[in-house]
Amino acid sequence: MAIKSTSIRAITPASYPASSSRPTADDFVLERYLKDRAALVERELQYLVAAPEGPSSRLFEAMRYSLLAGGKRLRPILALAACESVGGSLEAALSFGCAVEMIHTYSLIHDDLPCMDDDDLRRGRLTNHKVYGEAIATLAGDGLLTDAFKVLARNSLSARVPASALIETVAELADAAGSAGMVGGQVIDLLGEGRDLTLSELEVLHGKKTGALFVASVCGGARLGGAVQAQISALREYAGKLGLAFQVADDLLDVEASAEQIGKRTQKDQARGKATYPSLIGVEGSRAMARDLAARALDALASFDRRAEPLRALASYAVERQL
Amino acid sequence: MAIKSTSIRAITPASYPASSSRPTADDFVLERYLKDRAALVERELQYLVAAPEGPSSRLFEAMRYSLLAGGKRLRPILALAACESVGGSLEAALSFGCAVEMIHTYSLIHDDLPCMDDDDLRRGRLTNHKVYGEAIATLAGDGLLTDAFKVLARNSLSARVPASALIETVAELADAAGSAGMVGGQVIDLLGEGRDLTLSELEVLHGKKTGALFVASVCGGARLGGAVQAQISALREYAGKLGLAFQVADDLLDVEASAEQIGKRTQKDQARGKATYPSLIGVEGSRAMARDLAARALDALASFDRRAEPLRALASYAVERQL
Repeated sequence: MAIKSTSIRAITPASYPASSSRPTADDFVLERYLKDRAALVERELQYLVAAPEGPSSRLFEAMRYSLLAGGKRLRPILALAACESVGGSLEAALSFGCAVEMIHTYSLIHDDLPCMDDDDLRRGRLTNHKVYGEAIATLAGDGLLTDAFKVLARNSLSARVPASALIETVAELADAAGSAGMVGGQVIDLLGEGRDLTLSELEVLHGKKTGALFVASVCGGARLGGAVQAQISALREYAGKLGLAFQVADDLLDVEASAEQIGKRTQKDQARGKATYPSLIGVEGSRAMARDLAARALDALASFDRRAEPLRALASYAVERQL
Repeated sequence: MAIKSTSIRAITPASYPASSSRPTADDFVLERYLKDRAALVERELQYLVAAPEGPSSRLFEAMRYSLLAGGKRLRPILALAACESVGGSLEAALSFGCAVEMIHTYSLIHDDLPCMDDDDLRRGRLTNHKVYGEAIATLAGDGLLTDAFKVLARNSLSARVPASALIETVAELADAAGSAGMVGGQVIDLLGEGRDLTLSELEVLHGKKTGALFVASVCGGARLGGAVQAQISALREYAGKLGLAFQVADDLLDVEASAEQIGKRTQKDQARGKATYPSLIGVEGSRAMARDLAARALDALASFDRRAEPLRALASYAVERQL
C-alpha cells in the first residue's frame, strides 16, 4: 500500500518553531513564515504519497509529478494558520492541509486535460497528461482526490482531533470540492466560455471554483484546532473575501505578467473568451476591488488576537504581490 | 446546493420491512430481497443527488444519468446485508451504501472514457461521455466520487452511528477506492493490456479493481451496524472470496452471453488482449473456481446466525446466476 496510513511521525523540533518563537505582531515576517510552512507541508506530502514501486508504480509517479511540483502550498498554509489562530497545534491540521493540497492538485490535473482547458504547461513544466498520457493523468487525479480523504480520516486521529470535528471536516471538504463547489464551478466555467458573464455570475463561478476550497481550508484548519462556532463564522467570512481577492489578483496577473514570470500561458483566459475581472471592470477597478476585499478580510479578524497575524499578513499578501 | 445534506427523512413503514418480517433461513427469498433493497437504495439515491437546476444543472443531469441507470445495486445491498447480519439497523448503513454506489458509478464513467476503455455502451445505454461529452463526463465522475464522501460523512451521523466508526469507514472506503485499490487496479489493467498475466497477477488486479470495494462495502456496513472486530474479520474473508467469485463469473458471462443479454459489447476483454479466467484456466476450470470461492465465502460465515442469510444467499447467487 503506497499511501502511508500510520500516525504522523514524531515531529522534530527543527520542523516546528518553539512556542516562544511563534509569530507575533512585532516580529512576524511573512516571507519566512511561508517558506517554513511550505517546507513542512512538502515533507509531509513526500511522506504521504510514497515513491513508486510495484505494478501500479506509474500511477504514483504521475501523482508525485504534479503533487511535488513546488506550488506555493497556499491552501495548507491557510489551514495551518487558521488552526494556530485559535490556539491549535500544527499537528492537528497538517494531514488536513495535505489532503486539501492533494485535492487542489487533482483539480489542476483534470482541468489541464485536453477535453477541459487543454493546457500543455503548468508551473513552467509539462502538464501531467503531456508526460503520462490522458489515461494515467485522469487516474492520477482520481487517486489524489480519493486518497485525500484517506489521509484526512486516518492520519488526523493520531493528532488527538475529536472524531466529531473530523467528520464535520470531511463533510465540509467534500462539499467544497464536489458538485456544489469546485466541480460545479468548473462546469459553469466550461459552459460559460465564449459568452458574457455578469459580475455576479463571475462571483458565483469563482466562489465555487476556487473560493469554496479556500473557505474549507480555513474553516477546517480552525475546527481541527478547536475553534468555537463564532470563530469559525468569522474565519468563513475572512476566507470568502480572501479567496476572491486572490482570484481578482490572479486575473490582474494574467493580464500583466509575461509567460516567463508565471510559468504558464498568459492571457489565455481572454483568448478563450472567458470573463475576467479586468475585462468586466477594468484594471484599475479590479485593483480597487482586490484591495477592498483584503480590507474586509482583515475586518473579519477583528476579534482575533496576535495569533492571527499570519492570516492578516496573508490578506495583504493576496493583493500586494503585484498591485 | 444540490446534494442534500439534511438528515435522512423519517423512514416510512413502506420503505422498510417490519422487524418481524426480517429474512430468516426458513422463509428467505433472495429475489424478493434483492428487489426490495434495490428499491430502497434507488429512492435514497434519487433523494441524495438532486434533480438538475441552476447554472451547473448539466452536471447533475450527467451524474443522475449514470447513477440512476438501474444497476443491480449489489454493493449497497451487500453493505445493508452486512449491517443486518450483525444486528444493525438499515438506517445505519444506507448513506454508506449509497456512497459506495456513487463511487462505483464514477469508476464506470471514467473507465468508459475514450482515453481508457473507450466504450460506447453501458447497461444497454450510451455511455456518459457519448451523451454529455468527455469534459462533463469526467466532471460527473469527479462529482460523484467527491460527493460520496459528503453523503457518508454528513448523513450517517443522523442515524446515530458513532463518529469513530464513521471515521474508520471513511478511511477504509477511500483506501479501497484510491491508489491502493480501485484506481491502482485500473492502472494495472490498462498497462497490462496485450500482455499475458499469470493467475496470481490477475488475482492482484481484480483484488484491487473490484475486490477492494466489495470488501469495503461489507466491512463498512458491518462496522456501522455495530460489528465487533472478530465479525469484521470474518466478513472481510467472506467479501474477498465473494468479490473474486463475482469476477470469475463475470468473465464466464463475457464469454458465453450475447450482447443482447448483458447490454454491452461482449468478448471485448479477449478482443483487447486482456487476461480473463477462462483464457487462463478454461471455462470448466473457471466454473470450478467460482464454486470453490463461493463455498469458502460461506465457510467464513459459519459463526453467524440466521441474520446472515442474505449474505449466504448472495454467495450462491454470485456463481449460480449463469453456471
